[in-house]
Amino acid sequence: MSQSLSVYLSGEIHTDWRERIADGVQAASLPVVLTGPVANHASSDECGVAILGDETASFWKDHKGAKLNAIRTRTLIENADVVVVRFGDKYRQWNAAFDAGMLAALGKPYVTLHGEEHVHALKEVDAGALGWATTVDEVLDVLAHVVRP
Amino acid sequence: MSQSLSVYLSGEIHTDWRERIADGVQAASLPVVLTGPVANHASSDECGVAILGDETASFWKDHKGAKLNAIRTRTLIENADVVVVRFGDKYRQWNAAFDAGMLAALGKPYVTLHGEEHVHALKEVDAGALGWATTVDEVLDVLAHVVRP
Amino acid sequence: MSQSLSVYLSGEIHTDWRERIADGVQAASLPVVLTGPVANHASSDECGVAILGDETASFWKDHKGAKLNAIRTRTLIENADVVVVRFGDKYRQWNAAFDAGMLAALGKPYVTLHGEEHVHALKEVDAGALGWATTVDEVLDVLAHVVRP
Amino acid sequence: MSQSLSVYLSGEIHTDWRERIADGVQAASLPVVLTGPVANHASSDECGVAILGDETASFWKDHKGAKLNAIRTRTLIENADVVVVRFGDKYRQWNAAFDAGMLAALGKPYVTLHGEEHVHALKEVDAGALGWATTVDEVLDVLAHVVRP
Amino acid sequence: MSQSLSVYLSGEIHTDWRERIADGVQAASLPVVLTGPVANHASSDECGVAILGDETASFWKDHKGAKLNAIRTRTLIENADVVVVRFGDKYRQWNAAFDAGMLAALGKPYVTLHGEEHVHALKEVDAGALGWATTVDEVLDVLAHVVRP
Amino acid sequence: MSQSLSVYLSGEIHTDWRERIADGVQAASLPVVLTGPVANHASSDECGVAILGDETASFWKDHKGAKLNAIRTRTLIENADVVVVRFGDKYRQWNAAFDAGMLAALGKPYVTLHGEEHVHALKEVDAGALGWATTVDEVLDVLAHVVRP
Amino acid sequence: MSQSLSVYLSGEIHTDWRERIADGVQAASLPVVLTGPVANHASSDECGVAILGDETASFWKDHKGAKLNAIRTRTLIENADVVVVRFGDKYRQWNAAFDAGMLAALGKPYVTLHGEEHVHALKEVDAGALGWATTVDEVLDVLAHVVRP
Amino acid sequence: MSQSLSVYLSGEIHTDWRERIADGVQAASLPVVLTGPVANHASSDECGVAILGDETASFWKDHKGAKLNAIRTRTLIENADVVVVRFGDKYRQWNAAFDAGMLAALGKPYVTLHGEEHVHALKEVDAGALGWATTVDEVLDVLAHVVRP
Repeated sequence: MSQSLSVYLSGEIHTDWRERIADGVQAASLPVVLTGPVANHASSDECGVAILGDETASFWKDHKGAKLNAIRTRTLIENADVVVVRFGDKYRQWNAAFDAGMLAALGKPYVTLHGEEHVHALKEVDAGALGWATTVDEVLDVLAHVVRP
Repeated sequence: MSQSLSVYLSGEIHTDWRERIADGVQAASLPVVLTGPVANHASSDECGVAILGDETASFWKDHKGAKLNAIRTRTLIENADVVVVRFGDKYRQWNAAFDAGMLAALGKPYVTLHGEEHVHALKEVDAGALGWATTVDEVLDVLAHVVRP
Repeated sequence: MSQSLSVYLSGEIHTDWRERIADGVQAASLPVVLTGPVANHASSDECGVAILGDETASFWKDHKGAKLNAIRTRTLIENADVVVVRFGDKYRQWNAAFDAGMLAALGKPYVTLHGEEHVHALKEVDAGALGWATTVDEVLDVLAHVVRP
Repeated sequence: MSQSLSVYLSGEIHTDWRERIADGVQAASLPVVLTGPVANHASSDECGVAILGDETASFWKDHKGAKLNAIRTRTLIENADVVVVRFGDKYRQWNAAFDAGMLAALGKPYVTLHGEEHVHALKEVDAGALGWATTVDEVLDVLAHVVRP
Repeated sequence: MSQSLSVYLSGEIHTDWRERIADGVQAASLPVVLTGPVANHASSDECGVAILGDETASFWKDHKGAKLNAIRTRTLIENADVVVVRFGDKYRQWNAAFDAGMLAALGKPYVTLHGEEHVHALKEVDAGALGWATTVDEVLDVLAHVVRP
Repeated sequence: MSQSLSVYLSGEIHTDWRERIADGVQAASLPVVLTGPVANHASSDECGVAILGDETASFWKDHKGAKLNAIRTRTLIENADVVVVRFGDKYRQWNAAFDAGMLAALGKPYVTLHGEEHVHALKEVDAGALGWATTVDEVLDVLAHVVRP
Repeated sequence: MSQSLSVYLSGEIHTDWRERIADGVQAASLPVVLTGPVANHASSDECGVAILGDETASFWKDHKGAKLNAIRTRTLIENADVVVVRFGDKYRQWNAAFDAGMLAALGKPYVTLHGEEHVHALKEVDAGALGWATTVDEVLDVLAHVVRP
Repeated sequence: MSQSLSVYLSGEIHTDWRERIADGVQAASLPVVLTGPVANHASSDECGVAILGDETASFWKDHKGAKLNAIRTRTLIENADVVVVRFGDKYRQWNAAFDAGMLAALGKPYVTLHGEEHVHALKEVDAGALGWATTVDEVLDVLAHVVRP
């Protein structure tokens, strides 16, 4: 490829998988530009009420925050060439599956990154993906293959 | 409305919420046509290998089934006017969040149906919805409002 | 035209202009199917909290109602062949201008119906329209012209 | 975000809110590129007849001007990542609601900026937005959140 | 084909080619539904000022009429399966070429109907067509081929 | 499903696979409407020159025929809910792969039907499909699964 | 506007209007990038047979050339922000009306440039435009207005 | 053209046609950026199992590889202005026809490159193309024509 590839990293924000992909991209000098959601958990959760005013009901607090984060998320997803969707061990992570559904409807290529234990529960998400990786190294190999000269 | 409304019922297939909506629609004589996924759990899970040949790896067994079910799901979702996305108490239900993501990307109206306990985890899904209901009766009232003469 | 024309009537819900168009369509036996928003003002304003639970903040009360009404509005606008957008003498009617903006972006034909006094303020809305009528009779003549055999 | 965010500032052209956002963006060194309509009121209103020839009827004078301005408006809106739609205290500002309707139909994120007194009248416009700000400072905080590294 | 084919007849309104196609469709009992613009020349030209008020400038008189006719034209073209675009011997017929351009951009199949003498001038229009017919009988044979059981 | 499913049968026209699917659909009373290309080989190949005039160069003879057939093919493919793409033992059948490419770009579900010997050569076509069947009976089981009540 | 505006100049290739617009853009230092079709008449007409082999029938000679030119035309039109469509005094210029139809269907802004004598014949083309200019100077003023800081 | 043209080279990966086009582009200093699939046959075929884990069934081995390659292919095809689709003498090359079908559905211009012997079998593919070349030199002349100043 003659231009760089724009890759959005969706999903889990509790482990260091984004940093490890960034390190691998840098180490291999891949022509890849990485983007992602606001990965600071507190900032991501509190942004709605912190910026646009407090709420008494938790639903509206979450609502305001989720919408502000969606400004960033949708913009970056629409500008990405490829997306990696990561499902970790904890939490329900419905936002990651939601992102995957948007990607499928937009016809934008995505690869999932999750362990063997989620294969059955993620079968619809994987059915729309162009690949399933189980490790960060596999994701890096996928990116290297896609951008090879 | 002068025509009937096409409503797809997405998500949980372990409780009788679809039947209760169907009963309510019939009781109120609403001009609503209901559709949904194959709700027989075994048939839904096994269809891939039952029809297109056995697999040794569970990933491919799930993969074949999820894709066959997607033929029906995508066709009905694209033909629906409105979708109700239900999240129940059990399982991870990533398929329901995946459907919601497709709906958001397609700009198709959807309403969620889930309990108070999932408000935080579903904040991104609810942020894209046009309403959050907690009971089947609320869903029926929404449908009745949408189609009132 | 060999089929009937689907016409959505957007905007003002405080006068009887919709009824007068319906009467005119019936009197002239035009092959026109009319649709519109929920025209009962109280029901339209209260639906959110009446169906999905009360709110203390007026913003969220309005928010829930506007979203429920949007389920109907967007469905009918997308299914319409032509839309008439009416601006009356009272209120700010930003919803009507909002509908017109959606129509312009969708490339769907619309005609405005408003008095001379709003010409300057509605110039952007009229610039996207395929006609400006000042009376219900003119609207009826437009519809009759569009569907003439 | 690794690239700059393109933000179109729609609506009111009688106060200095655009300058204040520009100042805040510069002060915080945000990677944000601001665009907007022709904000010179006279030039915006007169451009049609000034450039393409005089008109006797005020409707056509406004029509020609609104269409010329639409060349700029639509181009910049389609190229923007996010739009801020401002409703001030004066005038009917149907053009701002019209822009918001286009944004909703295009699925492009927008935030509204208006006072508490317009909450009810703007409920349809706010229902399609990803946030409601009441001050320029809140808008700046939203932009800072969206582009944080 | 198991359903009927919707065919819009665009272009020349001064000769009886539409009637001859209608006769041929009826004679062969083809499952074809024909539509077209308002073919009464005076009504088509005068409709704008006749319905929406007189104009002193011929440009605006034509403008109002062309826009009213566009309501019908665009609706029928978007609902058609196939379009026949006819160029006759007289007039400039830019409207027919305009319709063809819309069809090419929409990816909707169209066939041209014109004499040998216009081959060079219509080369861009023919380049986007799926066939060039020189007689009504050829058009009828094309339609019969498309709908054969 | 409450409505019938529209299924287009693309590809090979030298064997009786379409008749066998039609027989199976009828035998099982499936709510399925089948469509397909003109399956008479001579008519399909000769239609261009037979209808629109002879050609000396074989390229243009083929060109005219392929375009006339495309009127039907594209119309039916765009109206179909699902497509079955069949690759047989003979000929190059690039038209079937071309149809599959269109389906992938349109996001329309398709299932392939071909023997084990073509698995490697069809890997890109199968990668975009929602299922791979090797027999007509499997296709019938897929359709029965998709439309089950 | 903070970026340059991409303007495609469509239509007449027999007079120097493109050069005059280019001179005016340069003289005023407008941030405008101009593009256009291959304006060498002979090259434009002969390119098909000159590059891809001779043809005996004039229809196919024109066909091959028109298609090669369409590669450039469609690419530049889709990449343009605004298009100026020029109709001169001679020839039928159906290609210019064809371009305008594509622009209308794509929702891309265009301005026409033609004399008073073509107002009636171009009414459908002008009805889809955002402005009608009669001189190159008016076009330059339109561009200057659109890009003013 | 004032910018460079992005050209994707699709199809045959067993001969040196891509290198010859690259040489010709460089020799003529054409403002053309060339892209293409991973042209190393082994890497292209083995990438799925090499990166994402081995498979026992050849179908899944091919499936995984084809999907990984599709990440690159679809990204580059969607970013290209023009595509050249090459059919060589060997293999079935259904992937090339599949790419052509995607291009036709996307409305993206493409030119085919193949010998006289494939004219009949490729008639549907050629019917959607904007040109048919038989030699690399013809392709280079086409590109030079498209980008001439």
